[in-house]
Amino acid sequence: MTHRIDCLQYANWSEKIFRQMREGGVDAVHVTIAYHENFRETVLNIERWNRWFEQFPELIFHGRTGDDVRLARETDRTAIFFGFQNPSPIEDDIGLVEIVHTLGARFMQLTYNNQSLLATGCYEAEDTGITRMGKQVIKEMNRVGLVIDMSHSADRSTIEAAELSERPIAITHANPHRWQPALRNKRDDVIRAVTANGGMMGFSLYPHHLKDKSDCTLDSFCAMVADAADSFGVAHFGIGSDLCQDQPDSVVEWMRVGRWSKEIDYGEGSSAAPGFPPQPQWFRDNRDFATIESGLRKKGFDDSEVAALLGENWLRFFDLNFGAKAE
Amino acid sequence: MTHRIDCLQYANWSEKIFRQMREGGVDAVHVTIAYHENFRETVLNIERWNRWFEQFPELIFHGRTGDDVRLARETDRTAIFFGFQNPSPIEDDIGLVEIVHTLGARFMQLTYNNQSLLATGCYEAEDTGITRMGKQVIKEMNRVGLVIDMSHSADRSTIEAAELSERPIAITHANPHRWQPALRNKRDDVIRAVTANGGMMGFSLYPHHLKDKSDCTLDSFCAMVADAADSFGVAHFGIGSDLCQDQPDSVVEWMRVGRWSKEIDYGEGSSAAPGFPPQPQWFRDNRDFATIESGLRKKGFDDSEVAALLGENWLRFFDLNFGAKAE
Repeated sequence: MTHRIDCLQYANWSEKIFRQMREGGVDAVHVTIAYHENFRETVLNIERWNRWFEQFPELIFHGRTGDDVRLARETDRTAIFFGFQNPSPIEDDIGLVEIVHTLGARFMQLTYNNQSLLATGCYEAEDTGITRMGKQVIKEMNRVGLVIDMSHSADRSTIEAAELSERPIAITHANPHRWQPALRNKRDDVIRAVTANGGMMGFSLYPHHLKDKSDCTLDSFCAMVADAADSFGVAHFGIGSDLCQDQPDSVVEWMRVGRWSKEIDYGEGSSAAPGFPPQPQWFRDNRDFATIESGLRKKGFDDSEVAALLGENWLRFFDLNFGAKAE
Repeated sequence: MTHRIDCLQYANWSEKIFRQMREGGVDAVHVTIAYHENFRETVLNIERWNRWFEQFPELIFHGRTGDDVRLARETDRTAIFFGFQNPSPIEDDIGLVEIVHTLGARFMQLTYNNQSLLATGCYEAEDTGITRMGKQVIKEMNRVGLVIDMSHSADRSTIEAAELSERPIAITHANPHRWQPALRNKRDDVIRAVTANGGMMGFSLYPHHLKDKSDCTLDSFCAMVADAADSFGVAHFGIGSDLCQDQPDSVVEWMRVGRWSKEIDYGEGSSAAPGFPPQPQWFRDNRDFATIESGLRKKGFDDSEVAALLGENWLRFFDLNFGAKAE
């Protein structure tokens, strides 16, 4: 069996979920460890993961390199890779880029919905592109091997990041806007800028990013994958499920407003449906990656393409982008 | 040539000093990066070192394992190992032990002169030994491979630490009290508790720790080394020079009072001589390790003993104690 990688999850982590990762044969998961946390709070979140690594060494371990994905497969465990959906962990201090990389961070979004110190988020009315500090931080992220993730960024900022970055960037969790015109899904020119630069995009299974949301069919999802692969090349896509398993509604509120607003913002939800929407039946959680595999096969992808989409593309990307650039 | 290791320095770091390390053939230096700094301030100090590593890659690099000392020798550079003279960087949070180890810390003193959350410092009137938190932190330091350093701790606390710790501990920089009865030098029972446990002690070249202080002769220093080796075994000793080069007097004040007192405390100095005392002429700085070598030879140590004292003992200790314990 080839490697299975999910390049974004944010669950209410538990032994149950770690066992489901094993049941689903998921070799690596990129987990979000910060939405609005500052540096010290992010370190506390890493400390919590360190406790889980100590408690469940037979299920999970801290992943740092592509080879750790291979080690996970060989030892029947899941490698956990850290990432941030916001640059809040580095505060206003470029020296923290290397520090968080040393602590294991491998992806950092330049924005989470709002304007950040680095770039413009996808919910802002105007997009002014990469800021002065953003340009410096992109260079530093390139230097140490911390991947730029533009999943929640506005279009111009994303295209500029793809062009300014000397290494490939990622959209870890989103779908093409032409399939489902959600604010968070990406227009063709954005996907093109990222993939043309050698970058990667992970297909999201978050209902708000799916056509017909929770009622989306596996067939429709796989048709979307086929269309994206046709347009931009199968080598540039993987899975970034955006699985938010077992989270209480209070967590979706933290994700949406953090400490930046006293008023609630419903993001992709609404006042009538403020919480997490139900997952489509064919992708409940980590156990259902095999279902996606068979859906893709049915759509005409061959074995090597299915392997590429389910993990090998991300693994190649991890190998190339998680450390200092080879001379 | 065998390896040369200095297991404690706290200089006003500069390219000049890094070049002197090379001139003196010093393969590894344990540098103090915190006296009273909290976690965030310690990270800022690591960031400063990261800049030096980036600026002077042909002179220094960040050392993490014994093999990095060998790499330093092979590539004609100096490996820099981080340590704290106080547990202030872990604040009241045991989870920070693993975090600071991940960031490169390899030695941590349980106290710096005063009572800490973990143990009693050598300047307190009463020594109540290892605290409740101290016992937990010793276990955690043992687990991750962060070495317990009792250089500035009181006697009972030091002996208890040596006994409680399941791995060898260190006194990185001090001399035998029977040679020079300074408050910071160590009595026989303390040295015995540390060395009997497989631990190490580094001989200090700080004038207050030397007989006749700045006027101490090389012969007297080497006679002290010979006496200690006779009493406790040559395998348990190395150099921890406590070199505080190019520091302004304001720094000795920070070391002594940090933020814990509004009144000045002169520590090993006095109101008449508040600053750093001059080094003995035969050990000005990193360039003079060869002088110590020839002094030890003259005292009757053979080649392998001189090599052990100048670095091979510390190297063996680094190999065994800087990571998770081998099963």
